[in-house]
Amino acid sequence: MNEILGNLDSLRSAMDNSEFDAIIAMSPENVSYTAGVGIWSQKVIRDRLALVIWPREGEPTLIVATNEEGYVREKSWITDVRAYIQHQDSPIKLLSDVLQEKGLGTGTIGFEPAYLTTEYYLELLVTMPETKFESCEPMLQKVRMIKTDAEIDLICRAATSTERALMATFSTAHPGDKERDLVGRIGSNILQSGAELPSFLFFTIGPNTGYAHPDPTEIELQPNDVIKADCGGWYSGYFSDIGRTVVVGKATDSQHSIYNRLAEVHQKTIATMVPGTPANEVFRQNKEFYKKADIEFNLPFAGHGLGLYIHEMPMLADYDGTPLATNMVFAVETRVRWPGVQGFHVEELVVIREDGPEIITKFMDTSRLMEL
Amino acid sequence: MNEILGNLDSLRSAMDNSEFDAIIAMSPENVSYTAGVGIWSQKVIRDRLALVIWPREGEPTLIVATNEEGYVREKSWITDVRAYIQHQDSPIKLLSDVLQEKGLGTGTIGFEPAYLTTEYYLELLVTMPETKFESCEPMLQKVRMIKTDAEIDLICRAATSTERALMATFSTAHPGDKERDLVGRIGSNILQSGAELPSFLFFTIGPNTGYAHPDPTEIELQPNDVIKADCGGWYSGYFSDIGRTVVVGKATDSQHSIYNRLAEVHQKTIATMVPGTPANEVFRQNKEFYKKADIEFNLPFAGHGLGLYIHEMPMLADYDGTPLATNMVFAVETRVRWPGVQGFHVEELVVIREDGPEIITKFMDTSRLMEL
Repeated sequence: MNEILGNLDSLRSAMDNSEFDAIIAMSPENVSYTAGVGIWSQKVIRDRLALVIWPREGEPTLIVATNEEGYVREKSWITDVRAYIQHQDSPIKLLSDVLQEKGLGTGTIGFEPAYLTTEYYLELLVTMPETKFESCEPMLQKVRMIKTDAEIDLICRAATSTERALMATFSTAHPGDKERDLVGRIGSNILQSGAELPSFLFFTIGPNTGYAHPDPTEIELQPNDVIKADCGGWYSGYFSDIGRTVVVGKATDSQHSIYNRLAEVHQKTIATMVPGTPANEVFRQNKEFYKKADIEFNLPFAGHGLGLYIHEMPMLADYDGTPLATNMVFAVETRVRWPGVQGFHVEELVVIREDGPEIITKFMDTSRLMEL
Repeated sequence: MNEILGNLDSLRSAMDNSEFDAIIAMSPENVSYTAGVGIWSQKVIRDRLALVIWPREGEPTLIVATNEEGYVREKSWITDVRAYIQHQDSPIKLLSDVLQEKGLGTGTIGFEPAYLTTEYYLELLVTMPETKFESCEPMLQKVRMIKTDAEIDLICRAATSTERALMATFSTAHPGDKERDLVGRIGSNILQSGAELPSFLFFTIGPNTGYAHPDPTEIELQPNDVIKADCGGWYSGYFSDIGRTVVVGKATDSQHSIYNRLAEVHQKTIATMVPGTPANEVFRQNKEFYKKADIEFNLPFAGHGLGLYIHEMPMLADYDGTPLATNMVFAVETRVRWPGVQGFHVEELVVIREDGPEIITKFMDTSRLMEL
């Protein structure tokens, strides 16, 4: 059986204080958090629902497709596992049966409207016309945003692994290497660092550094080119997410100047991240720092919570007033881009500790533009 | 600008014969198909909508988040690009504005209910109360299921690349290798074969071959262990998907017997795949072949269409009566599993040609259980 990393007691007390008779975890992050097992087909095949029915009282039930049944019976702590035959039975019908069986057919049921597709939602309404469905996403996000020590340990290992993969790739990059081959190498290094899969591999060179998420190309690294990396992997289901910019050769004065100012914005932003500061205050200060550094600011967020999903609450954005708290984990990203020309990106993972922010991606010196 | 691989003329004539005033492509596969550019953030960040508004008459419009704007302006053939600021503006509001501007506010609009989340759907209904939304998924699936020659060339290259990656990994597997390290190696080999990212890496050993999609473990390959692979990558946005089973050492008579019967089921199933045969007839015959081979049959499909999405129409399943046609591409998967004990999996990519099925994954001899 897999280890439970998340805080199920926190979820239980959130349930006690909620209006829900039950909630249904639907997204890969919430299913994994509650069931203690990752179900891969859910991430790749859109209609392959996996659901955890978590009642206010009594034991949870895990619904999966038959091809995952044997595995989750072995790995999940949830013993009540029900399977539907994919492409034949409706998972919504099975969900309805289980809710009826638990006497919850007319209750208030939490679900995930930012995950569930419209087609399944419409089936839900027809199958369970007497049930009241309301979003339980804010509640689950609030539970998940405070990480347990076990989760932080895992995220630290993931961060260290990905940073080592980045260093190994930078240090073997040479003029003449194709962008596509460098992407292959960072991906290989992330896999060999212990990830079960790379999650995204933006490892761009020269003019492509001006884009956020381009496909890898055949262009070759030129002497004195910028390399910009924004990469991550899944480690036991948790994301890493790190950004670094280096020059292979000699940077120009103008590149040093931009980078130095960006690095200062980055450091000042992280310094504001003490417990109690609202997430949007971090964003507002970040905006100010950009302005003072005379770098054009047109980015709607300065970073994001990170865990089983790539963008978790709190978001370091104008709309999110959540106060920072101990054991939150953030990806703080400071960047500037001129499409098709060049771009710079520094992104660190930060754990909020009682006495302030701790940067957990700290092998590379990001305070100056590294020339390799 | 990226090459257009799909058949936009076929889409245009499907539009002419439909009741839609416009359709909105929403899923990564349909956005990529219509716009000719892959938008990565859409695949990783669930709320980061990218949309193609494709009217019955006039030019299409591409809606993306601002951080993708520069890139898609460079890469897509669509020149009318509109951007919303992510985490700040609503993409649905922008969609509504564009539909109004095109005089389509009260029309019949096709959308993707099996992709769009409930939250965005409910916003759609509130923002555009006079618009009639209906699914355009069957129409888009029918267009995409007949591949162009350019798409087939790309899928063939992807298939060949992944099969070579599999051979390279099998041929270097030795007793003592950890399952986790083998997963790292197949992923690296898929990346180095030219994929922009591995899509899924199920490379299991010993008792774990009995599961479909387990996480990689620390268990070590033992002499005479079975290795079961079900792997793929994204190549210019298109999936590969290949399954192979080998033994590192000597297989038992019972393993040879199971495998030989499975391979026969597999070959016979593929032989039925000639133009005109309904997809569910292939499934029914496959079921019969399993029965005759005395292998327990409890699988709801024998294979699936493959392209920009992992499961495309037609599905080789009971519910899909679509007749097979020239230039369809299928992953045909024949497998048997005993959870936690052992499993065998053979999966080939098959192109339907005028004179019958062509297997495009053909380097490895899958007719017998390979002993390495």
